[in-house]
Amino acid sequence: MTRAVHQIATGVLLPWPDLDRRHGPWPAGVAVHIWDGVTPHSEPDADVLADIGLWVMPYAVPDAPRLLPRLPRLRAVQSLSAGVEKLLPRLPAHVDLHNGRGLHDASTAEHALSLILAAQRDLPQWIADQGAGRWQPHFTRSLADARVTIVGYGSIGAALERRLLACEAQVTRVARRPRPDQDVHAVPDLPGLLPHTDILVLVLPENPHTIGLIGPKELAALPDGALVVNVGRGRTLDTHALLAEATRERLRAALDVTEPEPLPAHHPLRHAPGVLLTPHVAGGSASFRPRAERLIVEQVRRYATGQPLLHPVPRD
Amino acid sequence: MTRAVHQIATGVLLPWPDLDRRHGPWPAGVAVHIWDGVTPHSEPDADVLADIGLWVMPYAVPDAPRLLPRLPRLRAVQSLSAGVEKLLPRLPAHVDLHNGRGLHDASTAEHALSLILAAQRDLPQWIADQGAGRWQPHFTRSLADARVTIVGYGSIGAALERRLLACEAQVTRVARRPRPDQDVHAVPDLPGLLPHTDILVLVLPENPHTIGLIGPKELAALPDGALVVNVGRGRTLDTHALLAEATRERLRAALDVTEPEPLPAHHPLRHAPGVLLTPHVAGGSASFRPRAERLIVEQVRRYATGQPLLHPVPRD
Repeated sequence: MTRAVHQIATGVLLPWPDLDRRHGPWPAGVAVHIWDGVTPHSEPDADVLADIGLWVMPYAVPDAPRLLPRLPRLRAVQSLSAGVEKLLPRLPAHVDLHNGRGLHDASTAEHALSLILAAQRDLPQWIADQGAGRWQPHFTRSLADARVTIVGYGSIGAALERRLLACEAQVTRVARRPRPDQDVHAVPDLPGLLPHTDILVLVLPENPHTIGLIGPKELAALPDGALVVNVGRGRTLDTHALLAEATRERLRAALDVTEPEPLPAHHPLRHAPGVLLTPHVAGGSASFRPRAERLIVEQVRRYATGQPLLHPVPRD
Repeated sequence: MTRAVHQIATGVLLPWPDLDRRHGPWPAGVAVHIWDGVTPHSEPDADVLADIGLWVMPYAVPDAPRLLPRLPRLRAVQSLSAGVEKLLPRLPAHVDLHNGRGLHDASTAEHALSLILAAQRDLPQWIADQGAGRWQPHFTRSLADARVTIVGYGSIGAALERRLLACEAQVTRVARRPRPDQDVHAVPDLPGLLPHTDILVLVLPENPHTIGLIGPKELAALPDGALVVNVGRGRTLDTHALLAEATRERLRAALDVTEPEPLPAHHPLRHAPGVLLTPHVAGGSASFRPRAERLIVEQVRRYATGQPLLHPVPRD
């Protein structure tokens, strides 16, 4: 253990201060420094950067990697994002990369649930009525008893499923690879599942297998009045086909991601009936920060004691 | 068994047709008739009414009890409401009353969750942005990690708690009578609990103990930015005091019930910042109907076989 600590650089660079005040003192053998990635002229001095071995990159700061060439002893980078496709090619081959797997699960699942409930319980209508001075109660749909199909059943899908089951909904799991032992259907099973789906939730990453996965044919297979929810990536859902179904009020939609994004000010999706839009905010809520802090504290502890860090990203 | 069936009137009057098509055939020994309480001139003939022993009253039809004098052999009334204060004094002393306990739990808890999530995840802001052509993402609050205090912890509160726990919130239970073995605090404990409450949810009936229970002092004890949710009865919360806190943007609110109700078109609550209103619709969603149908089918089965019916309401 002790040998490992002395072999590696002792400097640790974090995006947020005071984690030790909330989570207990830092382990012996590391020197913690802070850089938030956005405050101008806030980079640590060159002699500090020269001894950084572990860098937790500032979250959602696209140009943060510009610091990489100034970190000669860097051994490991922790990203707080789940997707690291853009960062990977910029890292030297000897630097280990660790991603933010799971940090956004609670936030994203919670936002998906918020969209589903708002659509089922007619919140957009009530909000309009509130401002217009109306008081016109009516019966609404519910989430309880609804048949929900989650396409892209991973850790976010599982977090959403726990919430949906507590709401007395029925859940069907679909993923690219079927896992019969976990009751996970495969994407080719969709034609048989869609006609029995009241709420279709997409939690898909964007890749050649998923782009346009839900198109006119899939949407046509949904029953009248079904709700389409997207908290994954906009391009996995055919915007044009969805707009056609929404415009004739056959399907409803609640979308946190769209194609294109940002959605233009005058895009017809904004005024289509039964369509609820949020601007790609599912992952960005208060629940991210404490989860990210706990991961950082654990990774620093592992780094200081020479243990393998969590969530390694395979390098070719 | 057989004797019991023949002693009582065989007629059963229900508000909805075709329950046997969805739930299986009616038991032998009962004659089922339908009256929805609203279609003009739809009352069954006098000879049918003369043999009604069990009446499931139409839901939310205030003048349905007008049929009572025409039901000479009536033995039992099933109400589909949880609160039967207004019906009770109109029933003859020899008629048993059964209420709709639990039928609205899923719907009401779900609506409370919808209000909480909409407020925490800024849905009113996103809906406004959608229509105005804006795309301005920002970090929001979350429900995960939030400290929720449920005041009026009964069956609806327990249904809400299951949903909140699945959303990774922390829940504190408060009821009129403390139940230390179930970790339920008493109302007098509120002063110590409110300063540690991010989301205060009221699920209280209206009675002399609850009217004005949450007033200026209780609201002042909540931390800045706390959310006040009411899905019980409007008079349990001091509207004037809440309005004052909301107007200076110290507290937020999401209310399904208000005082007065309906809320007038120009009531200042409608335009107070951080206030979300729905028109007393928490109990009225699609999940009510199947639960009510299952109760009706069970009660008819019990009536036909001479077993005690569920959910009796004590008569003095």
